[in-house]
Amino acid sequence: MHIIAPREKLNSLVQIAQKAVAQRNPMPLLSCLHFESKDNLLFLSSTDLEFGIRCTMPVTTVIDGATAIPAKYVTSLFTRLPDVDINIKCDISNNTTTFIYGDSEVVLNGYPADEFPIFPSFPDKPTLVIPQVEFKNMLKHVVFAVSNEEHRPVFNGVNIQVDQDGMISMVATDTRRLALCQQHLDTPPSQIINIIVPGKTLNELFKILESTDDKLFIYVTENKVFFVIDNICIMSRLIAGQFPDYRIVIPENYICEVRTSVSELLDAAERASLLVNTKRNVFNIHFKPNGMMIYFYTETGRIREEIDANFTGDSLDVGFNVRFFIDVLKSIDSEEVIIKLSGQDSPSLLRPVDDDRYFSILVPAVSQGE
Amino acid sequence: MHIIAPREKLNSLVQIAQKAVAQRNPMPLLSCLHFESKDNLLFLSSTDLEFGIRCTMPVTTVIDGATAIPAKYVTSLFTRLPDVDINIKCDISNNTTTFIYGDSEVVLNGYPADEFPIFPSFPDKPTLVIPQVEFKNMLKHVVFAVSNEEHRPVFNGVNIQVDQDGMISMVATDTRRLALCQQHLDTPPSQIINIIVPGKTLNELFKILESTDDKLFIYVTENKVFFVIDNICIMSRLIAGQFPDYRIVIPENYICEVRTSVSELLDAAERASLLVNTKRNVFNIHFKPNGMMIYFYTETGRIREEIDANFTGDSLDVGFNVRFFIDVLKSIDSEEVIIKLSGQDSPSLLRPVDDDRYFSILVPAVSQGE
Repeated sequence: MHIIAPREKLNSLVQIAQKAVAQRNPMPLLSCLHFESKDNLLFLSSTDLEFGIRCTMPVTTVIDGATAIPAKYVTSLFTRLPDVDINIKCDISNNTTTFIYGDSEVVLNGYPADEFPIFPSFPDKPTLVIPQVEFKNMLKHVVFAVSNEEHRPVFNGVNIQVDQDGMISMVATDTRRLALCQQHLDTPPSQIINIIVPGKTLNELFKILESTDDKLFIYVTENKVFFVIDNICIMSRLIAGQFPDYRIVIPENYICEVRTSVSELLDAAERASLLVNTKRNVFNIHFKPNGMMIYFYTETGRIREEIDANFTGDSLDVGFNVRFFIDVLKSIDSEEVIIKLSGQDSPSLLRPVDDDRYFSILVPAVSQGE
Repeated sequence: MHIIAPREKLNSLVQIAQKAVAQRNPMPLLSCLHFESKDNLLFLSSTDLEFGIRCTMPVTTVIDGATAIPAKYVTSLFTRLPDVDINIKCDISNNTTTFIYGDSEVVLNGYPADEFPIFPSFPDKPTLVIPQVEFKNMLKHVVFAVSNEEHRPVFNGVNIQVDQDGMISMVATDTRRLALCQQHLDTPPSQIINIIVPGKTLNELFKILESTDDKLFIYVTENKVFFVIDNICIMSRLIAGQFPDYRIVIPENYICEVRTSVSELLDAAERASLLVNTKRNVFNIHFKPNGMMIYFYTETGRIREEIDANFTGDSLDVGFNVRFFIDVLKSIDSEEVIIKLSGQDSPSLLRPVDDDRYFSILVPAVSQGE
């Protein structure tokens, strides 16, 4: 392979393409970024087999070919190269790749490119097309609730469903909390969708998506999903299994309801979180006429926060995992939140004041140490 | 103690005062920030016994007194408190301190304040007064060369000397590199100075000093030094011992000399540093007519950098520790550097083109693995 391209464009692509590089993978080849040139196009890809990214850009090709180079050196090198045209030449006899800039050059030792996993191909027609900003917003409201524990795979992903009427819904839960977001699509999908996409994939996709109306193309196959934006393709295996029906955890009746400022409540919860330790991570909130009182104590000290709120119903005292409570508040875009309580031992519902497209459910918590 | 003061001012002081809190000290009291109020003044201090900071601010005092609270909780709390007047009240019966803001409060558990080390007092008259910007600039040019190894204490500090003519000089060395900065003071000192100040103290002082002509007051006692700026006092023990005479390592004759761009040379050295590993951390530079060539290889790959330079003298090839070479270049404010070489096995001198107040010496290096 021998290609020529400007450093700046190569660098921005390298920084995206390396995001799927396997961390701590026993196969050194998977710690590489794969370069392949064909017909004046460069394909840059990385994968940990579950998850992959491929970026494409036009380059001047002198000789078509491919190479695999440890990603950590390539990505660091590109941030420090001068802004000139870079010649990238690989020598397959010893798996080295030379980067030539002006009169200087760096040679990096690599691996045989033909052993790198082939990036899977996706169907001709997209299953769903949606503005990037809409998908990104939906992700923001649910992805925080994905579980990081490994014993039940379906909880490590977001369940994305699109029905034939064009209603798209995303749900994530780890059984102690649940987040749901749904909205009507302008363009219904070519087929109904019901998939579970790993949270890790969606976190990377969230960072790459821009808050614009530019389109995101989604291709669903039997066991994979592809997210395509311009010259970037993110591939992920789907999580197999049946996602539980979230409707059964939504309370039907509420004892009381408060409406208050998201930022004031978040500040108070963040202050309380300073006292959290491994034994005690659950604070109590006393919901009462005209307000809420957070109270919490640990070995470090104690806190009592009084927050003004609109209140209706009967007074109630509920325990919340401090971290989970903060996560929900951070996912809310509105200035005010409505919290509906169904009892001391029953789930609570939190939703923004002026947007009925998303809400979260928190199951009452008890400190681990108690 | 019961005081009242605005959160914003308290916070900025807390963030400075906590910088001397002992890291990993077995005495829990030294992980505390000490609050003391007296005659409508608040004194905030921290110390690890070797090094201490005390800040002062006017407050409204209701009851004079003192308390000691774990610094990590106080500093986090103040970054998150609302911008209102904060009441700070301590209860000496159980060593708790209450922070009251609006209708809410946090109580932090602390320690008996009277067991906290007394902040030492300094002489009435300063030994030296110097504009902050001048002292800060001098520090920048030398402090990087302080040794972090513990076997020879004098090398863990900067030797600061002021002679009776008002010439101030700072020198730091770890035997493999040396940095010197000297300049003439507008106001000579009240006495000659010859002290070794720990690098750790000077790094903190560097962060606190502002690039303005406001005065820095320095007080030297037999075994301590105090740096005072406005309401902040930094105290440090001096390092005992005799600092070696730096003059003997400055070469008298040079074989060749180059003059080149600091930024181009730094970029090239930074790229080479990507290849550094624990076995190989020394690159070679070939000094030759019209330029310099850096070359270096490790298991990761190899680099060859060609840099244009003005050259006089005979060609020469010298090895430099990559990290040390970069440190020197980063300490140079000018656009161009002059490098004078005295031989393959003899020290090199690096200095800015248009400033004769500072220079560095690098001893030729050989990779540890060779």
